[in-house]
Amino acid sequence: MTTTYKNVFIKETATHAGIYEANGPLKKYFDKTYTKDLYFGEKSWEKAEIKLLKDTITTLLRKSRKKESEIDLIISGDLINQIASSNYALREFNIPFLGIYNACATSSEGMIIAANFIEGKKAKNCIVSTVSHNTAAEKQYRNPTEYGTPKPETSTFTATGGAAILLTNEKTKVKIESSTIGKIIDKGTKDVNHMGAVMAPAAAETIYEHLTKLKRTPDYYDLILTGDLGKYGKEILIEYLKKVYHLDISKQYNDCGTILYDIKKQPVFAGGSGPACSALVNFSYIYHELKEKKLKRVLIVPTGALFSPTMYFQKESLPAIAHAVGLEVVE
Amino acid sequence: MTTTYKNVFIKETATHAGIYEANGPLKKYFDKTYTKDLYFGEKSWEKAEIKLLKDTITTLLRKSRKKESEIDLIISGDLINQIASSNYALREFNIPFLGIYNACATSSEGMIIAANFIEGKKAKNCIVSTVSHNTAAEKQYRNPTEYGTPKPETSTFTATGGAAILLTNEKTKVKIESSTIGKIIDKGTKDVNHMGAVMAPAAAETIYEHLTKLKRTPDYYDLILTGDLGKYGKEILIEYLKKVYHLDISKQYNDCGTILYDIKKQPVFAGGSGPACSALVNFSYIYHELKEKKLKRVLIVPTGALFSPTMYFQKESLPAIAHAVGLEVVE
Repeated sequence: MTTTYKNVFIKETATHAGIYEANGPLKKYFDKTYTKDLYFGEKSWEKAEIKLLKDTITTLLRKSRKKESEIDLIISGDLINQIASSNYALREFNIPFLGIYNACATSSEGMIIAANFIEGKKAKNCIVSTVSHNTAAEKQYRNPTEYGTPKPETSTFTATGGAAILLTNEKTKVKIESSTIGKIIDKGTKDVNHMGAVMAPAAAETIYEHLTKLKRTPDYYDLILTGDLGKYGKEILIEYLKKVYHLDISKQYNDCGTILYDIKKQPVFAGGSGPACSALVNFSYIYHELKEKKLKRVLIVPTGALFSPTMYFQKESLPAIAHAVGLEVVE
Repeated sequence: MTTTYKNVFIKETATHAGIYEANGPLKKYFDKTYTKDLYFGEKSWEKAEIKLLKDTITTLLRKSRKKESEIDLIISGDLINQIASSNYALREFNIPFLGIYNACATSSEGMIIAANFIEGKKAKNCIVSTVSHNTAAEKQYRNPTEYGTPKPETSTFTATGGAAILLTNEKTKVKIESSTIGKIIDKGTKDVNHMGAVMAPAAAETIYEHLTKLKRTPDYYDLILTGDLGKYGKEILIEYLKKVYHLDISKQYNDCGTILYDIKKQPVFAGGSGPACSALVNFSYIYHELKEKKLKRVLIVPTGALFSPTMYFQKESLPAIAHAVGLEVVE
């Protein structure tokens, strides 16, 4: 479902990043980075993740000089079962709340829902937030990191970070111009260590739908930036779009999973993942480049593997989704 | 956040109910009931839950005579980790998808998001769906039922059912007139066997907010119907609203958890729960009464305990939320 907007703007963003992310190339764009450990003073990975989100939202309110009472709505989701990080972080804020889950596509899902509330004049200020935490995610989805389970090169590394964005109806330098809500795509892939391959067809379908519905060619955008396909998924997407949709995005294309880290030097396998991965990149570096007019039109396409360990153990394949959001400089 | 709507209508609903629900007082209002077992021909409780949702949506499309291609958007959520039931059921439909999670308040959350897409003229036909399955939920949240763990009288019984509603911009007999998005309320309660007590303050806050913002008294509504507080939570809500907000809703008030079953005869403890509980009641019996004009204005207030076993084991209290949706007969 493709939509265009006239009155939805980015007021401010906040990004808090973990150790590996702080050691990556985007360090200077983050509002806060952690260097000691991944506990952040808490006693469990999950509580650390909750704190990360709470602190990120507090930073966003401070940077945007808004009180809680001025925020109409907060939309948040994360990877922890029952989106516990969002539920437990957000109970600290006196703001109406909607919980969402689209795995690593959560930030774009939230931005689209918020954009519709604002465009329809039902809300003025909406926060969208997400968080992920490497060791909390490993513990829940794979094995506790203490086990030292080896991984193949195609696997990705869940980013540790909190990311929040304040969308508003007041004109600013950057607007949300359009969006496309994706469909669930399941091509029968069962390799949980190759999420790039699982999600690439969903990204392809959403990018094709977005461009087709808006009658645009890929060069309308300075950059088309998928969620977190990683370096192998990235290659698959380019080939898949060429083969299935006769669409060549190779000149404009990159992937957040390969931008967040220096994937040649850091031990992150094929690149970053987790809902914070694309949100950290988009809400810090990409937003900065748009504000500075170094980029003018960017299509962000966070991708999510709607992976459930329960269903995986029952031999089910892995569904995926991708939602696109067009960000443009306000002329 | 309270909103009114002018152009959002209910086109159709579909409800599939399990054995205990079929043995309750609302049997004749459901589109389909199951009587054999809770597997529905599948090999696991989770796969049975997925099938239940898939079949319910198929029934909704058939009843409303709509093709998948005529549906702009489907919004769905459930109790299974990673909202797996929604993700795996919805991969079978070629419809743009947004996944949500607000536990047993999921149906109202979805209706509010859909109403905003329709009111803002960005979508014409949106499906909102949810599902829960007694034994799948017990296995994940508590103990497998095979263990025979005893329960106190204040505990509730997760409903087995799929429920879906089609909202549209075309005028019909029943409209969505208003909504209030709730905040996360956590009063420090830690009793997972007394969710009514956990959720009552969230319901109170949302009902008070809704009535106050719209300058209405409780008697504006023929019925104020909370999600699934159960018989003890129901008493707590009435007292809490009187004491804290000086608001008496006792004349208009009831709770879906006590309507879905005959709580005096059926072994459901304090009543029903699960996202399907309120959705089964609201999308079948309540919708029927509105169509027949036996009820003219109903405020449904599905309530959700944003309970996470992981955080509960880490000694955290239980956050809760409630979202209100005003349903009215179109005159």
